[in-house]
Parts: sequence; structure tokens; C-alpha cells
Amino acid sequence: MIVHRKTVRFDELKLDCGETLREVECAYEAYGKLNEDRSNAILVLHAFSGDAHAAGVSDIDGRPGWWENMIGPGKAFDTDLYCVMCSNVLGGCGGTTGPSSTNPDTGEPYGSSFPEITIADMVRLQKKLTDALGIRKLVSAVGGSMGGMQALQWAVSYPEACASVMPIATTARHSAQQIAFNEVGRQAIVADAGFQGGDYYGTDGPARGLAVARMVGHITYMSDESMREKFGRRRRRSEAGEAPAGETGGIFEVESYLRYRGGQFVSRFDANSYIAITKAMDTFDLAGEHQTLGEVFDPCGGRFLVFSFTSDWLYPSYQSEVIVRALRGRNKEVAYVELPSNYGHDAFLVEAGEQTELVRGFLAKTYERVLETTSSSIA
Amino acid sequence: MIVHRKTVRFDELKLDCGETLREVECAYEAYGKLNEDRSNAILVLHAFSGDAHAAGVSDIDGRPGWWENMIGPGKAFDTDLYCVMCSNVLGGCGGTTGPSSTNPDTGEPYGSSFPEITIADMVRLQKKLTDALGIRKLVSAVGGSMGGMQALQWAVSYPEACASVMPIATTARHSAQQIAFNEVGRQAIVADAGFQGGDYYGTDGPARGLAVARMVGHITYMSDESMREKFGRRRRRSEAGEAPAGETGGIFEVESYLRYRGGQFVSRFDANSYIAITKAMDTFDLAGEHQTLGEVFDPCGGRFLVFSFTSDWLYPSYQSEVIVRALRGRNKEVAYVELPSNYGHDAFLVEAGEQTELVRGFLAKTYERVLETTSSSIA
Repeated sequence: MIVHRKTVRFDELKLDCGETLREVECAYEAYGKLNEDRSNAILVLHAFSGDAHAAGVSDIDGRPGWWENMIGPGKAFDTDLYCVMCSNVLGGCGGTTGPSSTNPDTGEPYGSSFPEITIADMVRLQKKLTDALGIRKLVSAVGGSMGGMQALQWAVSYPEACASVMPIATTARHSAQQIAFNEVGRQAIVADAGFQGGDYYGTDGPARGLAVARMVGHITYMSDESMREKFGRRRRRSEAGEAPAGETGGIFEVESYLRYRGGQFVSRFDANSYIAITKAMDTFDLAGEHQTLGEVFDPCGGRFLVFSFTSDWLYPSYQSEVIVRALRGRNKEVAYVELPSNYGHDAFLVEAGEQTELVRGFLAKTYERVLETTSSSIA
Repeated sequence: MIVHRKTVRFDELKLDCGETLREVECAYEAYGKLNEDRSNAILVLHAFSGDAHAAGVSDIDGRPGWWENMIGPGKAFDTDLYCVMCSNVLGGCGGTTGPSSTNPDTGEPYGSSFPEITIADMVRLQKKLTDALGIRKLVSAVGGSMGGMQALQWAVSYPEACASVMPIATTARHSAQQIAFNEVGRQAIVADAGFQGGDYYGTDGPARGLAVARMVGHITYMSDESMREKFGRRRRRSEAGEAPAGETGGIFEVESYLRYRGGQFVSRFDANSYIAITKAMDTFDLAGEHQTLGEVFDPCGGRFLVFSFTSDWLYPSYQSEVIVRALRGRNKEVAYVELPSNYGHDAFLVEAGEQTELVRGFLAKTYERVLETTSSSIA
């Protein structure tokens, strides 16, 4: 199934920081058909380095989608029943306005002048998109990792607009350790002389710093056990990337892998987007000024399905449990499952089996409710 | 107690890689008095970024030692009873020959020509030192983290020369995850244009890359919980180091801390030492060509005290348990304790309380044996 990326342009987008972005573009893809009353839409929200291409074969580069195993006919997000959509986040570099986009006021890339953005800003743009498509209520807002933060923000910012929310392997706010890992990535980028304060477009940019940042990320996405299974202490002769001196005996496969993935990332991701988006994750705090996290959920009428994975040490289960306790404390309808997996944080992308059962059942029940509400409101 | 760093020079040191280093210097400090028959010596082995200054007040810069809370009169390593010594490792930058030392063949710093070294090479130099001091048998070879690797290597390389061994928060070999974290640090260094292939002496060198490498290290040394307790999500206005654009609201304290510690590290550590020593850790594999880890312990007659810390996720307890099982399988005298601590890998440096009790008792019993053996051999 070849999918086409579409783009909607909005005159402006107000940001939490007080600035207003003009001529904002939002790139998205859709899988499955929107029904007549536009009641079968599901919005999938991507993680930090993801993009709008969640499923199918991209018409741009032929790649499969990042949630290919979960979205499609008969799959967890069944495109025979639902219209599943995914948009690139604000601040990204996959078609939606971000630091590498042209600033309409100057005709130059934003670079260092791109304003500070938040998860709520990302969601505000997504709401403009669903409004533009005539969707009044989503069956679900769903995402893992940073996508889960957006899903939570949907529940809070637009409680009437989502019948359910699925925050996966995520948190209501970053811990010091999560901020620390992001900060190391950012520092690796700004330490690269090629960064030039963020105004590096038209030059090579901070390619090596960005690669190092990505390497840190990859370690945190895997578990100790999954790295042992995948690489162990095996060595290899040939390699990608540059090696320090004195590597007799060959480098370890895990080194080769990290260097390769770091280098590969540079070709598809923008360093300023890296900084802007990780900052948005770090400053995200769903409770905000509220006394308790529970309070922010007061207006929410939708259903919640929260899940986490046993070996995920980057977004450990206790963070999902904080969300679940807050919801239960407000008598919200919430199901929580901690799924067994060795894949660490990557589990939400690769463990399709049990996720599929959970998601399918949850969506069916939610959609039933949506249809009941629709028919009763007609009656 | 002001302590003076001493240096011994050896004509040569044969390395595992086949090369021979000439005019090798070994810097060390000693606390307490060596007794007449030189039977009361304890060798403390430092971790990756440590140095010979384990206790007292340095005569060079007035700093306290890195294990100040454990070494001294009446402390765990009681200098009223024992002569405690610590030397800077081979490849280091604290007085012992390393990449920043002058190559006697060229009159220039080794830089990129410094040979690949191993943990066994480090221990071989330490053995030369104890031989030079006329010490035939150590009461104990003790160390945490990379110091624990050296302690294990002492047990295997020189089983007759240590009455006991204390490997703390360590492993018989690095996992893929441990290698991966080290590799990210190395790549941050080589990605810095200032690295110049390792021949950067006389220039600024890869200062920013080295700082990033250190930041990664600091995260892995702490636990999720200790970072939360120390930093939480608190912000601060002022900061050390360079900040990416758009930090309204101030940076997080954890960011400020990491930037500060990263910058501080650069002033005291050499990037080539960083690479050489982390490589030695990664290639360390105590079992080597043996079928099982147990086999390597066959010649060991000494006692073992192994301990690990509950919240240490960099050197998790299961790695200590692997060592303990191998020793038990060979009927060696081994005690193992997993100590409760929230401090992560740093625990071995900061949790003096319970460590003191364990170490004191273990050393007393070991020394009793040493004295028995000495007197019976005299009889």
C-alpha cells in the first residue's frame, strides 16, 4: 500500500511562549477511509524521532511506516474499520514547520530564531488539522513515548474531542534522569563546531555531534538484556564511522551498530529539531500549576488505556503507574497493563503481539460507545 | 594529613599487545606504615577517572582523596594497622605513564602512538611497584568498578601475592550496554575537531567532546532515584557551560550540574587516557580463553569479599553474582553482600557505613591468617 504524504497550511499558530508562527505547515498521512460522519478517526502520535509515516509504503522513499506492525487491514489499528492518521510534530523535520523551515518573514530558515515549543503547541497544531478535516471527535489519541505525552495532552487540552486516549511507555513529566540523557544529546550537538549557534543551514552542520546524540538515544531505547542478546561481546573487523586508534582485535559489534545508526540518523534528522523537540519533552509537565496530577483529568470523559513494558528503563513502569493512580483517584475509566518484554523502551515499536489484543479490544469498546452517542444524539 | 605523591621508574614494561614501553613511571601514594616484614600492605585500585590520591590531603593541590571516608586511622582501611597504597593506572594522566607522557624514543608526547593497553598490563605495572617496595604478599587487593577488575586480575595473575581480594561493584567482563556507554564517550571525543587523531598536545584538544563524554558517565554513575532526590525538576537561572537557544524559564539543575561537571573534568583528565582506559575496560574478559570463569580462579588461595549495590544499574548485582558463583563452584572462600543504597554506581565511593563494617572484619580475619602463615613459616 503506497501512501501519500499530504500537507495542510494554517495562517498562524499561537504558541505557549507567546509568539505566533505564521504560515504553519502540517504534514500528515492517513490510512483507511474516513466514514461519512467522520466518527472513525484515530490519531496516532509519533515519538521523538518519528514522523508522519506510520504505516504503508512511503511515496517519497519507499520506507515502511514506523508502526507498520500495528496499523493496517486486520491489524491492531484496523484500517478496515478506522481511519488512522499521523502527522509530523511541530518543530520536526518531516514536512511540518520546524527550525529548518523557511521563515516567511525573512525567506531564510528559522535556525536559531525558531521559538521554544511545547507538547501542548504540538497538540494545538494537531487539533487544527483534525478541525480542518472536519473531525469533531477522535475514537482515540494514541502514542508511545513522546507520542504518549501528546496523547495525555490531548485528553487535557481537548477532553471533548477524544473518546479515548492511549498513553504508551510514557510519563506525565520527565525525571531528572530523562532530562539528563536529553541534555547530553543536546550538548553533543552544540559542542560540534559545525553547529554555529544553530544557523548552520547550507553547511554540513553539526553532523558528528548529532550522531553522538543519537548513539546515546539508542542505548536508552534498548535494555541491558536486549543488547546482550543482539550484540553480546562479539567483534567485527570492518566498521562504519571513525574509530579511535588501537582497535586490534576488531571493534565490538555494539560499537559498529551505534556508529552506523548514529551516522544514518544524520541523513534524516535536523539537529535544531533534535534540540527543540527534546526541550519540549523535558519541559512537559502535565500537572502544570495544579496541586495534583488528578486535577488535570477532571474534565476528561473519555476512556484510558495505559501500558508500559517491564524492561523499559527509560520510561519505567512507575511513571505509567503515576498516571493510572491519578486517573483512578478521579474515578476515570482506565485500564493499565504492564506488558512483559525484553526490548526495553523499543518494545512499544516491536512487541505487536500482546499490544494488538489490548488495543483491538479497547478500540472496539470505545467505538461502540462513540456510535451509541452519535445515534442517541440523532434520536 | 598531607600526603606526598611518589614516583618509581622502571626500565620497561611488556604489554599484552606485544609492545614494550620503556622508562615507565608509576605514581603512587602510601598511607600508614609498612611493618618490618612488609606483611601489612593493602593495594587500593582506582576506578576509571580516579588517581593515586586515595586519601589524605594532596601536597599537589590540597584535594582530599577519592576514598577519604574509607582510608585513615580507625577507618575501614585502618592506617594504624595497615600500610594502604594506591597507584595511578598505566595509561592514566595522574603521574603514571600514559598517552600524554613523553615518549623517550621521540621526546614528544605519545598521543596516537600510545599502545593499546589492558587491565592485565595495569596490574603488571602494579606488581612491579610492590616488588620494588619489597612486598611479597598483599593483605588485600581492593577496588571498585574498574578497580574491581584490577583486583580480580591480581587474584588471577598473581595468586600467591594476595592474601585476599575485594572486587566491589564490578564485573568479570563488560556487557554490551557497558561497552556502548563507553563507546559513546569515545565517539564524543573523536567527533571533536580538536581531537586531531589524538595528537592534540599543545593545543586546546577535544575539550568539548571530553566534557560530553563525562556527562554521559555521570548519568550512569547515579541512580534514577538519586538524581530525583538531588535535582528533581528544579530550575536555575544562572548556568555553567553553553546553552542551546530558547531556555526560557531557566535550565534544569541537572543540566547545570552536568555541564559544570563536564567542564571541570576537562581540566584534570586527558582525552587519550579516556580512550585508552575505557578500551582496557571494554576488552577486559577475566575468563579469556578458558571454558568457564571458574577455571581462572583455580590457582587462587586467597579469600574473596565481593559486594555490589542495589541501585547500581551500570554494574548491576548480577555481574557480581556471576563472579561469586564461579568462585563457589571452585570451593573458594568467598563472601558476597548486596548492600542497599540509592546512590547507584557512586555508592562504593559514598556509602562508607556498611562498607566499613564489612571491610574491617574481612581484613582483620585475613591479616590474622597472614600472621599465622608468617609465624608458621618462621617456625
